[in-house]
Amino acid sequence: MEALLRPAVRSNVISLAGGIPDPTLFPVRALGRMWHRALAVEDPKFLQYGSPQGDPSLRGWIADHCGAAGIAARPDDVLITSGSQQAIDLVARTLVAPGDPVLVESPTFLTALDVFEGRGANLIGVPVDADGMRVDAAAAVIERYRPRIVYTIPTAHNPTGVAMSDERRRRLAALARQHNLIVLEDDTCSEFSYDGEALSAIKAYDSGGHVMFIRSFSKTVIPGLRVGCIVAHGPVMARLIEAKLVMDRFTSPLIQRTLWRYLSSKQYERDLRIARETYRRRRDTVLRVLEASMPAGVAWTRPTAGFNLWLTLPQEVPAREAFAEALKEGVACGLGDLFLPHTPPPSGLRLSFADKPEEVLAEGVRRLSSALRRLLSARSGQADEQTEYVTSV
Amino acid sequence: MEALLRPAVRSNVISLAGGIPDPTLFPVRALGRMWHRALAVEDPKFLQYGSPQGDPSLRGWIADHCGAAGIAARPDDVLITSGSQQAIDLVARTLVAPGDPVLVESPTFLTALDVFEGRGANLIGVPVDADGMRVDAAAAVIERYRPRIVYTIPTAHNPTGVAMSDERRRRLAALARQHNLIVLEDDTCSEFSYDGEALSAIKAYDSGGHVMFIRSFSKTVIPGLRVGCIVAHGPVMARLIEAKLVMDRFTSPLIQRTLWRYLSSKQYERDLRIARETYRRRRDTVLRVLEASMPAGVAWTRPTAGFNLWLTLPQEVPAREAFAEALKEGVACGLGDLFLPHTPPPSGLRLSFADKPEEVLAEGVRRLSSALRRLLSARSGQADEQTEYVTSV
Repeated sequence: MEALLRPAVRSNVISLAGGIPDPTLFPVRALGRMWHRALAVEDPKFLQYGSPQGDPSLRGWIADHCGAAGIAARPDDVLITSGSQQAIDLVARTLVAPGDPVLVESPTFLTALDVFEGRGANLIGVPVDADGMRVDAAAAVIERYRPRIVYTIPTAHNPTGVAMSDERRRRLAALARQHNLIVLEDDTCSEFSYDGEALSAIKAYDSGGHVMFIRSFSKTVIPGLRVGCIVAHGPVMARLIEAKLVMDRFTSPLIQRTLWRYLSSKQYERDLRIARETYRRRRDTVLRVLEASMPAGVAWTRPTAGFNLWLTLPQEVPAREAFAEALKEGVACGLGDLFLPHTPPPSGLRLSFADKPEEVLAEGVRRLSSALRRLLSARSGQADEQTEYVTSV
Repeated sequence: MEALLRPAVRSNVISLAGGIPDPTLFPVRALGRMWHRALAVEDPKFLQYGSPQGDPSLRGWIADHCGAAGIAARPDDVLITSGSQQAIDLVARTLVAPGDPVLVESPTFLTALDVFEGRGANLIGVPVDADGMRVDAAAAVIERYRPRIVYTIPTAHNPTGVAMSDERRRRLAALARQHNLIVLEDDTCSEFSYDGEALSAIKAYDSGGHVMFIRSFSKTVIPGLRVGCIVAHGPVMARLIEAKLVMDRFTSPLIQRTLWRYLSSKQYERDLRIARETYRRRRDTVLRVLEASMPAGVAWTRPTAGFNLWLTLPQEVPAREAFAEALKEGVACGLGDLFLPHTPPPSGLRLSFADKPEEVLAEGVRRLSSALRRLLSARSGQADEQTEYVTSV
């Protein structure tokens, strides 16, 4: 059976590059019902020009659910955005002027960098290890450059999948307070924590409004709704709302009300549990096959949440070469070079495991292992030849 | 009966300030059906992370319907945005750098100015008369300041309701070509043309991609969908798409597909016809009551399209005073001072007539007339007193 299946699978490239949720898990029918109910129950006036801050019911739901991350928030501390991308853009537009230093993890989420670069920011990278951003290194950089913003993805870090330790979270919140800067905490995946509860948010340790917290419903519900939010305290909220008004006036109240009805239903908790279980099994499969098939010298992270893990290649293998070889073998990965800023580029690949069934993931990882094995043995051959050559001269 | 009704009506202020469509005309049930059909028919993958340029079906519909405005466009010339506000913001972000001169009508749409000011543009106002922007004045300003962008609302100009003449449209397109600048043509209301077909768009006279055309579905369908678009030719489209990706990645494909299904149905044409007829009758009512009740010295525009008209007050009556007096009388207008840029502020008020039944509009205009009549007679009394005083000294 597998022999019959293989050629068909082989003829298509398996993409482990997406970092996206699985559309077969999207709550399509529930959203249909909720939209219908919203249209049937609400006054048509709610479809009129709406509030730039967003639907009060949805803001209320978000404020309530911030408690799970240790964040105390009222509905007025929440601004609804068109996805987390707009949330980052809004904060940058409100707080970053050309030339301002902005501190980011290296590597980090590419499109966030596009935002800051678009504002003319001066990006400074801080390394990431198995416990997330190296906050000790960040402290030195903060002393030296006095950044306005530190952008971080402490849970399910993109692209590496690591989680920032609780100790570092506390220390980063303290640094923000001490240096009067803003930590922009991007959290789009902590609902998909696979090994027990997620850690408290950095914002849970915020006093004085130095941490802004971004959430998204793209991963937990569907990307096609385009809803995210910023949780922020203090006078900056009024400036964020003003910026939202100028950018696109408001996010569709019909979408917001539909989402709120879905989030408030029992169905949401049920769907979330099923998705979390599914993604956890996929992560486990990928880790198991990596363990069984990868050649020596290749290392990888063990993500506790989210959709991605990070494969570190041996120094002598450039990520671009591994990427190309893997593609020949029929598997696409996220090229590490894309997750800036970094000098030199980290020799790594991002593997995304959320949007494929386990057997496809397993096959993808096996192909990648074959490609890397081939590459490494060719390289060790080359290295031998080169050594011989050097010796013979 | 009217005597009984009056006090109840009087106890609430009638707002002619909105500039918004009438929610009782929103196609609520049709959108419910179309959303349902989109969710039932489409692959759930269409709810995944989507195209920053937008849904090809919707872009196709828009390209086809550009023909009515004399514009030749292919689907690839269309970029879907989250409302026309985002379209303006996208263009500004792509083309305007701090200090760039940007030419706008004076008065014009307030939130467009917020966008350009947010980019650090140097705004230059050009007066508007009964035939729209004074393109002769614009030509002189262009010669002198070499603006990068000329922003105009040639049809259903906001706030005045006037239409730019066909001759001026041709001339402005020629000026754009000659000086290698961009005309940003904002058209959110030409579907609501009340006296026959709308004029050709300025973009109909574009050759070489010097005109960008903005449309919106906020007025013709519902504001709460948040869909608009930019029609642009040439290499700038790639830059606009890149900017859209950074701002909010993409507009909800579910909303786009729902809208496309509605626009492609016979229901849309029927709904549009009914709305157009309703708004036309409301415009006629407001014009009739203005004619019957306004004191001498007050003038107003006769809009051929859109939701607004402009009331010019006698020089000696500041708009703020008229606004306050009208509010005392139980009617709210759009204060002219808000529609910048201008020095000195134009002594005018914007009256919006789309979102109220005719009898409410009539009552609102009568109240405004009473307020202005009282103000003018008090003022002429003051003037007399003052004259007496001057004489007696």
